[in-house]
Amino acid sequence: MRENNLSHELTVVGSAALDTIETPSGRVEDALGGSAFYIGAAASMFTPLHLIAVVGEDFPMAEIAFLRARGVNLDGLEVASGATFRWEGRYHENMNHRDTICTKLGVFEGFKPKLPRKAAEAGFLLLANIDPKVQLEVLRKMKSTRLTAFDTMNLWINERRSLVDQLIRKVDVVIVNDEELSLLTGTNSMLNGGLELLRRGPRYVVVKKGEHGAILLGRDQPPFLCPAYPLSAPKDPTGAGDTFAGAMIGYLAATGELSPFNFRRAVVYGTVTASFAVEEFGLGRLKSVTFEEIEERFRTFQAMVEF
Amino acid sequence: MRENNLSHELTVVGSAALDTIETPSGRVEDALGGSAFYIGAAASMFTPLHLIAVVGEDFPMAEIAFLRARGVNLDGLEVASGATFRWEGRYHENMNHRDTICTKLGVFEGFKPKLPRKAAEAGFLLLANIDPKVQLEVLRKMKSTRLTAFDTMNLWINERRSLVDQLIRKVDVVIVNDEELSLLTGTNSMLNGGLELLRRGPRYVVVKKGEHGAILLGRDQPPFLCPAYPLSAPKDPTGAGDTFAGAMIGYLAATGELSPFNFRRAVVYGTVTASFAVEEFGLGRLKSVTFEEIEERFRTFQAMVEF
Repeated sequence: MRENNLSHELTVVGSAALDTIETPSGRVEDALGGSAFYIGAAASMFTPLHLIAVVGEDFPMAEIAFLRARGVNLDGLEVASGATFRWEGRYHENMNHRDTICTKLGVFEGFKPKLPRKAAEAGFLLLANIDPKVQLEVLRKMKSTRLTAFDTMNLWINERRSLVDQLIRKVDVVIVNDEELSLLTGTNSMLNGGLELLRRGPRYVVVKKGEHGAILLGRDQPPFLCPAYPLSAPKDPTGAGDTFAGAMIGYLAATGELSPFNFRRAVVYGTVTASFAVEEFGLGRLKSVTFEEIEERFRTFQAMVEF
Repeated sequence: MRENNLSHELTVVGSAALDTIETPSGRVEDALGGSAFYIGAAASMFTPLHLIAVVGEDFPMAEIAFLRARGVNLDGLEVASGATFRWEGRYHENMNHRDTICTKLGVFEGFKPKLPRKAAEAGFLLLANIDPKVQLEVLRKMKSTRLTAFDTMNLWINERRSLVDQLIRKVDVVIVNDEELSLLTGTNSMLNGGLELLRRGPRYVVVKKGEHGAILLGRDQPPFLCPAYPLSAPKDPTGAGDTFAGAMIGYLAATGELSPFNFRRAVVYGTVTASFAVEEFGLGRLKSVTFEEIEERFRTFQAMVEF
């Protein structure tokens, strides 16, 4: 928890992918995707960040020019020989469920992130959903973090449970969705499950419920109930959870204030930024969104919850 | 919209039943139930009310002594020769879904509510989920309402659609759950569906989403997003929606203030009162709850949503 001159910077480690996505609204092929890019696109609206991921030689670098333009440090984006990770998914009618049609790990298989010195010195770390073994290695390499956060998925909870448990004990913020929370705690109650996770180590647990919003749980404070931002025409939910996490941690890094009150505001920034993500396919809307638009939606959200 | 000396009173028309309920937490047989009693129990915490329903000769009158003690006017509770309406249902593991095992309408079949004069002169009317033909007849008999609200179910939407549509045009507040809203508007978007209903006539549309909260939509005002009150150990969701509606309209009747701001507060009172309903089987908790407990939970809820 020491302060240093990189204390407002954020290091993000995650997947870089080319996604083929089908939803009731349409279809895209080989669109820019992966947790690292969703998080990068969201967090870069708030704070300087280092993006650590791996792509193949086939990766269309021009697609991420917008990240560079937003000041994202891409020194940690490795280009390996082989093909970029590809994922194909199809969403059901109500977009709450999806089927994975195809996963080709390519260069993402055996990903061993190399942390440039500045990335290792950042004050904030967000470990997106990747192999928990790799997440733990990155965590060990960080020099002096003020806040560490991690996300995971049912695959790792089922297959590498003890490593996931280690991460839960070591990080400051655990970010899970409702299904993962049930798997981790054996309860269907979001409240009980979240409180149980909180007892295992982290300072905060954030439960993502998709279109139903999120719950923030912290020690010695009331839960924070955050509805989702209602949208008329969501098109593609891919990456909404990563966008939420990226904006949340990005906002905390930018403000540097880790009070319970500011954590609540961070969750709201996560919520409204994620609402942009689902308005277009892939990263389409996150590429064009402005900080003023995010601020405007933050104020609109306030007007939709006060009573 | 004229004021009269009964302007703060509420008339409730609904079903009176004996419920056999099985949830993962246990089972009760022939417990006091039905929309009229859930609404009556909730609304009577806020305002004087007239309860209009029908029971059979087998009905255990002692069970509703608590309503009389709260000042509920039971002149409109008809005792008909025959058996009380019985419903049996079983909830799935996560309590979001239930199967109806058995329905015996008994005296509820062909229910023709008789409105005592004072009930017809009440300022507020809440038509719980019953045959829309009956709801329309009651609506016509009311003398000078300040606010009318109605609830329905998929059965009536599917089988008596034109009558349901008439009600939507005539009442001030339409209360539906997410499934009913989809049926009525053909959309999966709660926001679009709610706004579409609003265009058909009512001043307000309230969309109940169960454990995911509620949305209030009114003309020329932002939507109000209300999360559900989180519970550690919900036992029986039966009647939660009726309790919500009863407390909401009861609060509006009690305060007599129909501003957008007060509608939002009414939705929050509905939410916190419904949270008590699911803590015990049937009407167990609503029988014992005090106004101080509701107020305390209202304040706790405020502390869980502010940012």
